[in-house]
Amino acid sequence: MERMERMVLVCILFSDCKKTFFCLFAESIFSFRICFTGAVEMSRKSPFASWLCAMLHCFGSYILADLLLGEPPIDYFSNNSSVILATAVWYLIFFCPMNLFYKCVSFLPLKLIFVAMKEVVRVRKIAAGVHHAHHRYHHGWFIMMATGWVKGSGVALMSNFEQLLRGVWKPETNEILHMSFPTKASLYGTILFTLQQTHWLPISEANLIFFFTMFMIVCKVFMTATHSHASPFAPVESFICPVFFGSVSSGHSSHHHNQHGASHEVSHPPPPPAKSKEELNEGTRKRKAKKAE
Amino acid sequence: MERMERMVLVCILFSDCKKTFFCLFAESIFSFRICFTGAVEMSRKSPFASWLCAMLHCFGSYILADLLLGEPPIDYFSNNSSVILATAVWYLIFFCPMNLFYKCVSFLPLKLIFVAMKEVVRVRKIAAGVHHAHHRYHHGWFIMMATGWVKGSGVALMSNFEQLLRGVWKPETNEILHMSFPTKASLYGTILFTLQQTHWLPISEANLIFFFTMFMIVCKVFMTATHSHASPFAPVESFICPVFFGSVSSGHSSHHHNQHGASHEVSHPPPPPAKSKEELNEGTRKRKAKKAE
Amino acid sequence: MERMERMVLVCILFSDCKKTFFCLFAESIFSFRICFTGAVEMSRKSPFASWLCAMLHCFGSYILADLLLGEPPIDYFSNNSSVILATAVWYLIFFCPMNLFYKCVSFLPLKLIFVAMKEVVRVRKIAAGVHHAHHRYHHGWFIMMATGWVKGSGVALMSNFEQLLRGVWKPETNEILHMSFPTKASLYGTILFTLQQTHWLPISEANLIFFFTMFMIVCKVFMTATHSHASPFAPVESFICPVFFGSVSSGHSSHHHNQHGASHEVSHPPPPPAKSKEELNEGTRKRKAKKAE
Repeated sequence: MERMERMVLVCILFSDCKKTFFCLFAESIFSFRICFTGAVEMSRKSPFASWLCAMLHCFGSYILADLLLGEPPIDYFSNNSSVILATAVWYLIFFCPMNLFYKCVSFLPLKLIFVAMKEVVRVRKIAAGVHHAHHRYHHGWFIMMATGWVKGSGVALMSNFEQLLRGVWKPETNEILHMSFPTKASLYGTILFTLQQTHWLPISEANLIFFFTMFMIVCKVFMTATHSHASPFAPVESFICPVFFGSVSSGHSSHHHNQHGASHEVSHPPPPPAKSKEELNEGTRKRKAKKAE
Repeated sequence: MERMERMVLVCILFSDCKKTFFCLFAESIFSFRICFTGAVEMSRKSPFASWLCAMLHCFGSYILADLLLGEPPIDYFSNNSSVILATAVWYLIFFCPMNLFYKCVSFLPLKLIFVAMKEVVRVRKIAAGVHHAHHRYHHGWFIMMATGWVKGSGVALMSNFEQLLRGVWKPETNEILHMSFPTKASLYGTILFTLQQTHWLPISEANLIFFFTMFMIVCKVFMTATHSHASPFAPVESFICPVFFGSVSSGHSSHHHNQHGASHEVSHPPPPPAKSKEELNEGTRKRKAKKAE
Repeated sequence: MERMERMVLVCILFSDCKKTFFCLFAESIFSFRICFTGAVEMSRKSPFASWLCAMLHCFGSYILADLLLGEPPIDYFSNNSSVILATAVWYLIFFCPMNLFYKCVSFLPLKLIFVAMKEVVRVRKIAAGVHHAHHRYHHGWFIMMATGWVKGSGVALMSNFEQLLRGVWKPETNEILHMSFPTKASLYGTILFTLQQTHWLPISEANLIFFFTMFMIVCKVFMTATHSHASPFAPVESFICPVFFGSVSSGHSSHHHNQHGASHEVSHPPPPPAKSKEELNEGTRKRKAKKAE
């Protein structure tokens, strides 16, 4: 077991040095750059907005956690060195001559190292978030979970508003309706850390950090290397969900639709956005027809 | 008068027991379920988002009040028992076998009791909100009103964002442009409670709570039983508004439109959404035409 | 130099009296009224929403600064006199018989005085914001800049949500993507004040306030008098931006588009909204096509 503890320590110390933060920022801004194809035009047209988006991608988790716990959302920006470091990375990735830096960080082997480090930092953020919330609300399990989750998921949870900042608006979907793997993993992880924190899980925090970090690194590196988006939780969920939450294709809904004609609004199950668009148009047509009468 | 005080006490004690909270949650989530016909599909497709929406419907008023007063918005979630109770109600309403629980709570006589209790709790929330704000800002009348109002209206005031969470986006209307009866009643009620709190209204708080609760219960139960949406304030407003705020169909606007050709944007008086849609299209067409030139 | 100090004092004392606040409110609400042509209909149809918008226009800067620093966002509303004054101005501008008050404030010479006063107040707000942030975060340069900036820009930075309150939604643009002159000037001004506050700029605060106020007044009065929207920073930016941020029309973007086919979303460079609209439609068509297959 000592060996493991030592590995955990290595893990933690290693991820403590600024170098990791540097990599974390590189990874964040790098993913922010490839995550939407307009990033480069935007960085040329309005560098300030691009910089603000990059900062959200780097520090979104701190901002959200501070918001939840009623602390100043820009509290973390008092770490000038981190902000300057992130700014430097942002500048190098977008404006490096001959685009060298970007080509480096998008070189697969290097990218896999970044991804692994990002997961190391993510798990430590979750643990720190649960710790912090536990310090303020000793028995607030839900608050611990919420804090750990936003610390782990970061900007993904406010993707709608991060898009709005860039002039893009996609209301028909969001991270909570369709969770990506990191968000879902953070949610399950924060539940584990909360159970550990409240002594329901008989395991030392260091070991939990170690095991969860390993799990995240393996999954994330594998998914990045194989460009696959298959969630490792899918089989488990497909087995459990039907038991607890019934099957998706249930005749209930329409049944109740008829039952409650006095429904205040028509909702649109987001998954098929095209469909929802059509329904919206129908709604508009109906309204127009009503007006015409 | 003693009889009245006693009735008030009964009222309050009655609404203090967990049973009422249970009913309140049932009512909240129940209304959340019928308020949009996609609720059941959503609960099957993404139970977590459905649960989050239900929590917003139950605790929205606390979240908003905490936001206004700069306290942690998830403060109320430290009451684990309430959250677990609300979660149980949510589960029963959406996933109860044979949909039994839902059929029970939507049984009219029972529903009327829920509605009545919800108003009891609403009025007590308004009073508590005004109290809390008065404790922090002794002469902040506007802050008292704002706090009492959001405590009374709850999730309705953030309906746009609650819809966004479900992937629905209806920007052309919101609760403040078109107030529903509970929101409007909360607004008038919080004004009364603020006047009482600042000793401009010569009446004991208990009596004010009692009378306002009776008024709300009578109105809400009547409206629910008759499925009517006619606001009891309409006649008064139709008499007062023209005196203070002029008539709706005033030729001013167009006049000023011409006067200020350099208007930065074209706004769309929301009430006829179809019209506003058409205007938007016009706007787009104009922009395209300008681009084509 | 004494003369200058005295002028600064005059400047400050002058802008301290309620009269200036009155003018500031007049200017704010007046600009709010002409800023969109539906303001008058809205004030008739839903006076409360109109009042709320007017309050946002008057106190938006305080609300945003309080949000950033984790203080109650409605803190400023405890100044009853200011709120009542703003309400009076709002009422006079929208509901004054024969529209007299509005005609007065929109009389050009008077309007220029208001504009000048507004800039006086804006600069003092920026200085106060930087001061306040410096008091809480002694070395938080970025926090000082952020606070001063939101204090100077005010409601412009939350224009999207201010529009949402009126039932208008324009996601394809926002103040950060396309900065207006006051927002940009506030940003540069707050940088100067931060440098002065951290003793990197060898000039007394009073002088900085004086010079920056003069600059703002001259620019704003000139722009208002000539109805021009040309930014005085344009020449400098057109010289500096290409050096630091490359040219706008860079072939990079498309290049990387091809390189990263696995781009999660299609972004729309906002400047030509029509184009972005078309791209959106394309996206929808693609999705529908995919569904049809």
